[in-house]
Amino acid sequence: MTATNPTTVPGLDLQQAARDHLWMHFTRMSAYADAPVPIIARGEGSYLYDADGKRYLDGLAGLFAVQIGYSHGEEIGEAAAAQMRELPYYTNWSYAHPRSIELAAKVAELAPGDLNRVFFTSGGSEAVESAWKLARQWHTANGERRWKAISRDVAYHGSTLGALSITGVSPIRNPFEPLVPQVARLRNTNRFRRPAEETEAQFTQFLLDELEQTILAEGPETVAMVIMEPVQNSGGAFTPPEGYFKGVRELCDEHGVLLVADEVITGFGRIGDWFASNRYDIRPDLITSAKGLSSAYASIGAVIASDKVAAPFLEGDATYLHGITFGGHPVQSAIALKNIEIMEREQLPQKVRASEERFRETLAPLLDLPIVGDLRGTGYFFAVELVKDKETNAFFSDAESEDLLRGFLSERLFDAGLICRADDRGEPVVQISPPLVAEQQQFDEIAAILGEVLTEAGKRVGH
Amino acid sequence: MTATNPTTVPGLDLQQAARDHLWMHFTRMSAYADAPVPIIARGEGSYLYDADGKRYLDGLAGLFAVQIGYSHGEEIGEAAAAQMRELPYYTNWSYAHPRSIELAAKVAELAPGDLNRVFFTSGGSEAVESAWKLARQWHTANGERRWKAISRDVAYHGSTLGALSITGVSPIRNPFEPLVPQVARLRNTNRFRRPAEETEAQFTQFLLDELEQTILAEGPETVAMVIMEPVQNSGGAFTPPEGYFKGVRELCDEHGVLLVADEVITGFGRIGDWFASNRYDIRPDLITSAKGLSSAYASIGAVIASDKVAAPFLEGDATYLHGITFGGHPVQSAIALKNIEIMEREQLPQKVRASEERFRETLAPLLDLPIVGDLRGTGYFFAVELVKDKETNAFFSDAESEDLLRGFLSERLFDAGLICRADDRGEPVVQISPPLVAEQQQFDEIAAILGEVLTEAGKRVGH
Repeated sequence: MTATNPTTVPGLDLQQAARDHLWMHFTRMSAYADAPVPIIARGEGSYLYDADGKRYLDGLAGLFAVQIGYSHGEEIGEAAAAQMRELPYYTNWSYAHPRSIELAAKVAELAPGDLNRVFFTSGGSEAVESAWKLARQWHTANGERRWKAISRDVAYHGSTLGALSITGVSPIRNPFEPLVPQVARLRNTNRFRRPAEETEAQFTQFLLDELEQTILAEGPETVAMVIMEPVQNSGGAFTPPEGYFKGVRELCDEHGVLLVADEVITGFGRIGDWFASNRYDIRPDLITSAKGLSSAYASIGAVIASDKVAAPFLEGDATYLHGITFGGHPVQSAIALKNIEIMEREQLPQKVRASEERFRETLAPLLDLPIVGDLRGTGYFFAVELVKDKETNAFFSDAESEDLLRGFLSERLFDAGLICRADDRGEPVVQISPPLVAEQQQFDEIAAILGEVLTEAGKRVGH
Repeated sequence: MTATNPTTVPGLDLQQAARDHLWMHFTRMSAYADAPVPIIARGEGSYLYDADGKRYLDGLAGLFAVQIGYSHGEEIGEAAAAQMRELPYYTNWSYAHPRSIELAAKVAELAPGDLNRVFFTSGGSEAVESAWKLARQWHTANGERRWKAISRDVAYHGSTLGALSITGVSPIRNPFEPLVPQVARLRNTNRFRRPAEETEAQFTQFLLDELEQTILAEGPETVAMVIMEPVQNSGGAFTPPEGYFKGVRELCDEHGVLLVADEVITGFGRIGDWFASNRYDIRPDLITSAKGLSSAYASIGAVIASDKVAAPFLEGDATYLHGITFGGHPVQSAIALKNIEIMEREQLPQKVRASEERFRETLAPLLDLPIVGDLRGTGYFFAVELVKDKETNAFFSDAESEDLLRGFLSERLFDAGLICRADDRGEPVVQISPPLVAEQQQFDEIAAILGEVLTEAGKRVGH
């Protein structure tokens, strides 16, 4: 292997060029007016290296995506190159090609129940867009006119205007109003801030009552779909309480509403199964997928549809009037196929299930810190919630949260060699979601760095 | 090179699997209930081969995208594999990496004027979404609340819900209402159906008067952007009349509206320049790009922003609140860079400019057929419009158009070994847009097959 030096491009000053020409995503660009842009140049296992050779443990798996870690470039690169030689591009608009067929069959095999038909997109936002469009057209095919979606507070479902309309993070949604009508929002399954005396069964019933009331208030005959992540990412790894998804499924059936499981993050092993819908027996009508489908080695997503949803589109002149130029791209499909092959060979979903309790136990001592109010999650998908006062679980103000996260934690963690996300889409949390190849050594390293930095953070806020 | 047989996957019947599991795009799936799904398996130059080895001339360059043709998989595959070994994925959310920086600098170098800053997406729809979001936030940063878009009749700008809202093709938009408010629509630059006595200058003035009236009627203080393809694809290669874009630019300036050139199709050589905005001196504030940026070997798109648009986002805590997981993907960026290198080496934009008149002359005899009313376009981007009666240029009814296009032309052209698009998003047209590596031999082949098949089609409709 003779890689060129990735940090140098002849005739180009990368730092200057980044500042002059690259518009980074969700990034306050003024932060780099006088400071260097962080340039990540190389990956290996669960680790990343910047352009100066400094090493970071990637506690976020890219963006909740790189299931197989960064060391499978040789094998996947060969699969991509082989496909490039045969057929570097073709479309699924009216035509098929071998790799998209093969990937569709493989995804259908891994997906739960009768979710047998796969529509490919270029990523997660497009998958959510495609699910909403499909739900609207499906109801029309059944003689109804339903257009609304129901989603949950603080849930992130993507950033294109349709997906953004569904997203429950108001600070990133409101600047772009008016958006796609209409989306109603429910409480998410965050139990940390619920009354201490509430039982899990009571919490479930509380949430299901709200769902039923919302469907009734909107008018069931207008509600196209309910969309939920099995374990909600934004806000910090909210797992469902016992009986929740069984109740959601029943209410959707009762009112003729499609249930969409947004598994862009939870799919492909992140919570210890190929799909979280299996683990929680969700029985969705549609699953949206992306990230882990290719471990982000490719730009590919998918909507996986049940036989019930597909049925009206298989007859007469019915056509799902939707398409994406790069949907099912042969090279992206080849990459995703090889990723799944590697995940199967290394039994990554099974490994996550076997390791998740050890991972949780390794993180558990963080709960002893005065700034840590909660540790929650499952699989390789955890979050710690930060609190101002542990006795009262008092909230940070917006300014305090801003200072804590962006003024201190993000930079300090990065300096300490750990990439994870200090976020306040809900209350301030630190999100932990390493590649699924991470082992006890990486759990220890994450816990050690977090322990050290959160101790400092606690002192900073007066603990 | 020892490619495996691409048409066989051990243990998988591709035909059956395609029928059972692959949801094809914009496809009436019942058409394949009793007929084989067309499976494209291999590409070479401007040609494609199906799973049975039958050859087709790709007169559509995939979907107006494969500028370099299908024979560069070896070279581009190596570039992809090399990047896979270094860094198979990383994000542009708060971080940079060498390939996205390098590609941003290269795109900025090729883009016109002061369009210096590049925000990457996974494709064209996302680029249009990103442009609209950016336009809305830019006006807010300037103390205004503007949200509307103005686009043109029959123009296709993408299929995600925001891009679809802008799209002017009502049959693929209406099934998904309600969409993103609000979009006003203008006539496009189709001159074929205008009064014979109208001069080009009169036509330009007619269109500009309509734009001005529309901006005034909507209220300039509410209009965020005007978005137009330099040469409009849907409807069939509508070129701008003399003075049109100069007038559009002036009206946008007068009313504080951003001008977006949607160059997803026209960019990267298709009309004989790196950007059509150069050729027509459009001076847009934003350019949307995808397809040709990587010749569709990758799933990548971009919004290219002028210094004027970028300025307010470089100061204080201003942040463009938008991001795409796969935006600027290192492997997709490496593929796009290699594609641009090949296009530069083979001087494809220059070649298109040098060949376009010969291409047009080769197609011109089609105008002698009674069913062909118009031949229009530029670069490697032409369309013939079909008419019911050449004396009167009478329109086909919807049923006649359906029968002509889907009942005859699409299948007959495919049987004859030519892939191009028989489409009636506007009036029935046959769209011709081969890879930019096509030579006189391919022009001749396209003209010969079209001549034969359109002669048959003419007889079918009674000529």
